[in-house]
Amino acid sequence: MPHRTLVLARLVVALASAAPALSAQRAASPPADVDRLIDAAVRDSAGYHRLARLVDTFGNRPSGSKRLERAIDWIVAEMKKDGLENVHTEPVMVPHWERGAESVTLLSPRRTRIQMLGLGRSVGTPKGGITAPVLVVRDFADLRAHASEARGKIVLFDYPFRQDLPPFEAYGDAVRYRGVGADSAAAVGAVAMLLRSVASYSMQTPHTGSMVYEDSTRRIPAAAISVESAEMLHRMQDRGEKIVVHLEMGARTLPPAPSRNVVAELRGSERPDEVVVLGGHIDSWDVGQGAMDDGGGSVAAWEALRLMKTLGIRPRRTIRVVLWTNEESGLAGGRAYRDAHRDELAKHVLALESDNGVFTPRGIRVTGSDSTVEKLRRIAAPLARIGAGNVVPGDPEADVSPIVALGVPGAALDVDGSRYFWYHHTEADTIDKLDAHEMALCVATMGAIALGAAEFEGEIR
Amino acid sequence: MPHRTLVLARLVVALASAAPALSAQRAASPPADVDRLIDAAVRDSAGYHRLARLVDTFGNRPSGSKRLERAIDWIVAEMKKDGLENVHTEPVMVPHWERGAESVTLLSPRRTRIQMLGLGRSVGTPKGGITAPVLVVRDFADLRAHASEARGKIVLFDYPFRQDLPPFEAYGDAVRYRGVGADSAAAVGAVAMLLRSVASYSMQTPHTGSMVYEDSTRRIPAAAISVESAEMLHRMQDRGEKIVVHLEMGARTLPPAPSRNVVAELRGSERPDEVVVLGGHIDSWDVGQGAMDDGGGSVAAWEALRLMKTLGIRPRRTIRVVLWTNEESGLAGGRAYRDAHRDELAKHVLALESDNGVFTPRGIRVTGSDSTVEKLRRIAAPLARIGAGNVVPGDPEADVSPIVALGVPGAALDVDGSRYFWYHHTEADTIDKLDAHEMALCVATMGAIALGAAEFEGEIR
Repeated sequence: MPHRTLVLARLVVALASAAPALSAQRAASPPADVDRLIDAAVRDSAGYHRLARLVDTFGNRPSGSKRLERAIDWIVAEMKKDGLENVHTEPVMVPHWERGAESVTLLSPRRTRIQMLGLGRSVGTPKGGITAPVLVVRDFADLRAHASEARGKIVLFDYPFRQDLPPFEAYGDAVRYRGVGADSAAAVGAVAMLLRSVASYSMQTPHTGSMVYEDSTRRIPAAAISVESAEMLHRMQDRGEKIVVHLEMGARTLPPAPSRNVVAELRGSERPDEVVVLGGHIDSWDVGQGAMDDGGGSVAAWEALRLMKTLGIRPRRTIRVVLWTNEESGLAGGRAYRDAHRDELAKHVLALESDNGVFTPRGIRVTGSDSTVEKLRRIAAPLARIGAGNVVPGDPEADVSPIVALGVPGAALDVDGSRYFWYHHTEADTIDKLDAHEMALCVATMGAIALGAAEFEGEIR
Repeated sequence: MPHRTLVLARLVVALASAAPALSAQRAASPPADVDRLIDAAVRDSAGYHRLARLVDTFGNRPSGSKRLERAIDWIVAEMKKDGLENVHTEPVMVPHWERGAESVTLLSPRRTRIQMLGLGRSVGTPKGGITAPVLVVRDFADLRAHASEARGKIVLFDYPFRQDLPPFEAYGDAVRYRGVGADSAAAVGAVAMLLRSVASYSMQTPHTGSMVYEDSTRRIPAAAISVESAEMLHRMQDRGEKIVVHLEMGARTLPPAPSRNVVAELRGSERPDEVVVLGGHIDSWDVGQGAMDDGGGSVAAWEALRLMKTLGIRPRRTIRVVLWTNEESGLAGGRAYRDAHRDELAKHVLALESDNGVFTPRGIRVTGSDSTVEKLRRIAAPLARIGAGNVVPGDPEADVSPIVALGVPGAALDVDGSRYFWYHHTEADTIDKLDAHEMALCVATMGAIALGAAEFEGEIR
């Protein structure tokens, strides 16, 4: 949103909040429910304990794995026990990539194991692996400058995570190398690509994540190594030492596998065909517990709905929790939801997702018209007392993006992102990185926004 | 030191600093050298780059390894190139423990790999490993309360690192379980001991370290697992789930191996037989780079001496850098130094060691009489301008403890310890965790204390 429009939107909000008659009118019963929900959520730790049970019991949940499908079965059974309505799954065919055994061993200037994780969707190495000298480059420009030296080598992109940018901007900046680094290296004759992990902090913690091949003819294996290792190899190159690495990756892509989106509702009392969606993605990478990314968002949405049910709240519009599958390696769940619900998207009032970790919430980022942003500011107002009432324009999360692209207003839970890229896509993404009270605040925020949207008089779009 | 004595000591310092005539007298030329040394050290980053080269080139340096001996050879050659005096090594026989292949796999309630590191000096498992149910206990009292359930099981001590204590106190509290947890578990019939890593923060980072067997008849294997894993197993037990683990450790103790302490000096101009010792330990655990523990302390001491040489400083007393071997798994280097130098210990003026990481220094901790503490306050005074002039009574570091026990005044570099137990004995103990400027401040502090002691009029004891 351009700055001038933003100022105008703020003016509209100021005028709206200066109209007590209107507020008082609407405040009759629904705001009382929103306040009851916020109070119940903030006192709650059931969501956190449920998340712990989910991730301890099933572990991480990569697309194509039995763990993911077992977790989905358990969630569906639990949702039914909770008394949620219309609990069901919707079929999605998902990409099925398996990591296999993998390792990076430095052979020269000295022999040592390098902490690594292959990148999702990468090809594997030939059996027996690849042994090759390493060319360390800082960025794409540096690779171009040294293109003539890359043939037959393993290219390492030692591109740093910029600490001078907000975390998600720095991620967007650095993740380009994860995405297309392999293609760039292959184009100049490299035999494999190594990546400095896209991480704002490291304790020898490699970070996996998706990559893509745009050139189908020269697919080279791609793996992330720890920040520590990337910096060490760079120092060795700067000292003029010859660097040789052995890379082995058993990665392979299997035929697409059946998975499912999970759906649960509280049906609307007045306009049941109008729908507010809230959710997260239930799949994760195949490391750690996928607690932060995105077990937390999934269970927070679910918990918000469970609390409404427990409190006897019956919204005017239908509130639907959706736990999407396959966000990490294809977004098949988000697209399948769009395709399965295409006919009712015009009646989707709002699609809210949490996928930045259930850390201390500040409010929401909204994708939609100025009017939508302004209405969501009114809906979010009761959250001001828990510090989560801030509404700003911004991009939607990945799973709702296919329906937001078709005009559904989008909202993303906006949280303290300062440690997100410490744990993202690592073995350290475990339940202990989340805090029960912070998660409770996220439940309150998601629930209040969803209920507020379900109760809202008139259109939100 | 009791509180009353401390007050008295402070009074003495106050009186001393209120005596300008005395100060001015002593300030003639030596303080100028101390100030030159501080200025040069603070501008310096050669020590940091030398440390990076050391740890990148040789990696970690466990007792008995070729890496340690090669690192020592390189250091000796570099010290000679630096023009230091009396550069030599002194023989030490060191324990030789090897980790071998090792793993912990959770089999029930679900199969997953557990991040682990065997504890130093532990026995290995029988070939094929040990598969057994797990009993999680919080502490020794909890083990006693459940002693009847421990037979045939693997006991996990999930004892937390107390965040309400200063880091080194919390370490002292928790490390008891690493030290004698195996014996305690064996005494009630356990077949192996697992330990929640002694860590103030974790990113799935297991921490190794020494353990001891006091009972030679029932030696059971002992390993640290990550904090995350310990908490997960504890949650599983709390849920009533049956926990079964497979532990494999190829650990073995080989015959003692030859190693060396490294010695380099600037000989004293007036009292060459009186010696100020400063140093760190050059061995490390067999994980990470041993950059913080204790490559940094070793190179900081060395760098302080190199700078004195470069600046043309010739101290009155001899200043001797000692890099002890085998601090981590036996303290053989510290004892060998004591034994080899027993005849000259009466003329050891001070023994200063850095082994808490070369983080931002605050000053030194001193072991000695009130008079020694007071004199070191005067010696440390020029460090006030870099924030490192604080002198407090306290325990010596391990390597100097054998000579401090014989009456040599001890000093330990006192630094910001807030992150020490993030990296301690882990794969994440790498050069990037240290900061060139902070290390330079440590070089300044060690150098100024050593030079001040070497120049000091009269006895320090």
